Amino acid sequence: MTKTIGIIGAGQLGQMLGFAGRQLGLELVFLDPADSPPAAAAGKVLRFPFDSREGLQELAAMSDLITYEFENVPVAALDHIAADTPVYPPAQALLHAQDRLAEKQLFSSIGIPVPEYRTIDSVADLERAAIEVGLPVVLKTRRLGYDGKGQQVVREGSEIERAVTSLGCNDLIAEQLVPFDREVSIIGTRSVRGEICIYPLAENEHRNGILDVSRAPADVAGLEIVAQGYLTDLLHRLDYVGTLALELFVIDDRLLANEFAPRVHNSGHWTIEGAATSQFENHLRAILDMPLGETHMCGEAGMINLIGSMPPILPKSEGSSIHLHDYGKTPRPGRKLGHVTVIAESVRARDAALSKIAENLIR
Amino acid sequence: MTKTIGIIGAGQLGQMLGFAGRQLGLELVFLDPADSPPAAAAGKVLRFPFDSREGLQELAAMSDLITYEFENVPVAALDHIAADTPVYPPAQALLHAQDRLAEKQLFSSIGIPVPEYRTIDSVADLERAAIEVGLPVVLKTRRLGYDGKGQQVVREGSEIERAVTSLGCNDLIAEQLVPFDREVSIIGTRSVRGEICIYPLAENEHRNGILDVSRAPADVAGLEIVAQGYLTDLLHRLDYVGTLALELFVIDDRLLANEFAPRVHNSGHWTIEGAATSQFENHLRAILDMPLGETHMCGEAGMINLIGSMPPILPKSEGSSIHLHDYGKTPRPGRKLGHVTVIAESVRARDAALSKIAENLIR
Repeated sequence: MTKTIGIIGAGQLGQMLGFAGRQLGLELVFLDPADSPPAAAAGKVLRFPFDSREGLQELAAMSDLITYEFENVPVAALDHIAADTPVYPPAQALLHAQDRLAEKQLFSSIGIPVPEYRTIDSVADLERAAIEVGLPVVLKTRRLGYDGKGQQVVREGSEIERAVTSLGCNDLIAEQLVPFDREVSIIGTRSVRGEICIYPLAENEHRNGILDVSRAPADVAGLEIVAQGYLTDLLHRLDYVGTLALELFVIDDRLLANEFAPRVHNSGHWTIEGAATSQFENHLRAILDMPLGETHMCGEAGMINLIGSMPPILPKSEGSSIHLHDYGKTPRPGRKLGHVTVIAESVRARDAALSKIAENLIR
Repeated sequence: MTKTIGIIGAGQLGQMLGFAGRQLGLELVFLDPADSPPAAAAGKVLRFPFDSREGLQELAAMSDLITYEFENVPVAALDHIAADTPVYPPAQALLHAQDRLAEKQLFSSIGIPVPEYRTIDSVADLERAAIEVGLPVVLKTRRLGYDGKGQQVVREGSEIERAVTSLGCNDLIAEQLVPFDREVSIIGTRSVRGEICIYPLAENEHRNGILDVSRAPADVAGLEIVAQGYLTDLLHRLDYVGTLALELFVIDDRLLANEFAPRVHNSGHWTIEGAATSQFENHLRAILDMPLGETHMCGEAGMINLIGSMPPILPKSEGSSIHLHDYGKTPRPGRKLGHVTVIAESVRARDAALSKIAENLIR
């Protein structure tokens, strides 16, 4: 019997889940209000808003299982369908990921260190926090922020009032702007039966608040095992099912958690060509309670996001295999249109290939 | 501008081409008379017979380029559309692949050794061939044979008359049944601009005339370079564009060509997970004249075809990554429903995994 997986969100992550699912012989159906979104290449799209009761019910009626490709899915809406159709990852992962305060409290409760922070509901709160935590801080909305939206860096006291006002005055959080050396992410998958697999760490570079380049494995020596421990604890604590990404700052020989995403993640796109099993395939195996696939790497991996425009040509580069992923979106400034993955025989060859690709990009 | 690739045939090879194409941002459209064929998961299917002038014209009108997933495409029908829409691989590859005599003459003309053979148009012809070539021979129709169909082994003189009659009496070919040690295949790709890439050899085991298991790389020592030379000569001679598979017999330290397929090939399914770039992606890169991707392997690869029924469960196996491919077909005895790929850290681990998978199969 062919199984049908319902996926909330039909963007590029949904598309990649869909491609992995098709290979496994699954049918896919997506819920997304957008007109011809990327995942339409992988299955039928029900065009409803994400919180549409009607849309979710139709999705549930067509699906054996439901999952999602982004973390701003309305939990209340999900609750209505979860009684009849299993929804993975579990709602409590969404609840924590949607609220930066709950997320930090969760991290702290299981011993994962986080940057110092304060909740902010007024200008006075931020003035106090600036003294206690010290400037600079990053002021963020507690909810619905992504790709650098809904946040502002406050470096001087004179910026406090405007920052608080511009972000809506309450339900904010101020975090110490940690002078991190590097940002890394660790991605892992946990299945219904509790099996866990973890990918090598990726090091991530951002540009204008959007992920620009990931490289894996990250050269973090002894910190890899620390990150694996944090991720494992998090997966267990949430009784998690599916793929999850944990973003961490590296400060000297310490790791501080930034945030987690209860879904497949842009910093794991390299796993399609670079790991024995992709994060997408493992997400589906996990929610279907199939045995998980191996996660070891086949070379040095690099990924470069294609933002705003596609490269006119892809270069050849000695010692590297270069792979284009085109999401089929209409080009628009700031829009993620695709990515390029490099799998190379050495770090040097990988970085040379990434440079060649970047030279061809309009940025 | 999104390009559309028209593919004649919408079976599992078309499906895998389609999945590779989707990732590259291509639109796919297929021509196939079957009701909901596997490639329907990857694009629109025009339901026409393969030789339908109307169907081919509609396909051409929708496509920037046309290619095919099986070698029995009627060349005359293709000629009508090739004037306006490029068709790859070129027609002369099809012409040679569709006629076992032309194929052998082509091999011989470029110095690729073949088993001894005779053309057969009567019982008397086969009686003469039995004396000259010696029994046993394999009697085959010159055209339209695949997966062991359209051929018969003749071991004794008493079988001659019935064999010739049952295969239609003329346009036959009798080949020496070579006492081969092993059967291997070598797959390569040549692009519009003439770039060539070649995959490691695979060793193939058949069961009831259908490919059962492939293992790559084949342990053939010095013969690999000989096979690469044959394949390169063949690609050049045909002015070939796309992926091609050449099947060879290994007899002691010699190779004899069996046949070639002007298309992606079942014995290269392992390249999806096991090579830096799959044969499917490279076929599309070749016909689009993009740079070809690297072909080196990420471990020891194995592939087992799923014929007639799907395994109820996939095992875990130490040191191996195991990947299911389900073509979405209705089960039927003798039907290729999917395959499983194993990528392992050692030959021993791969073979252990293949055995575990085979144990779960009803065969």
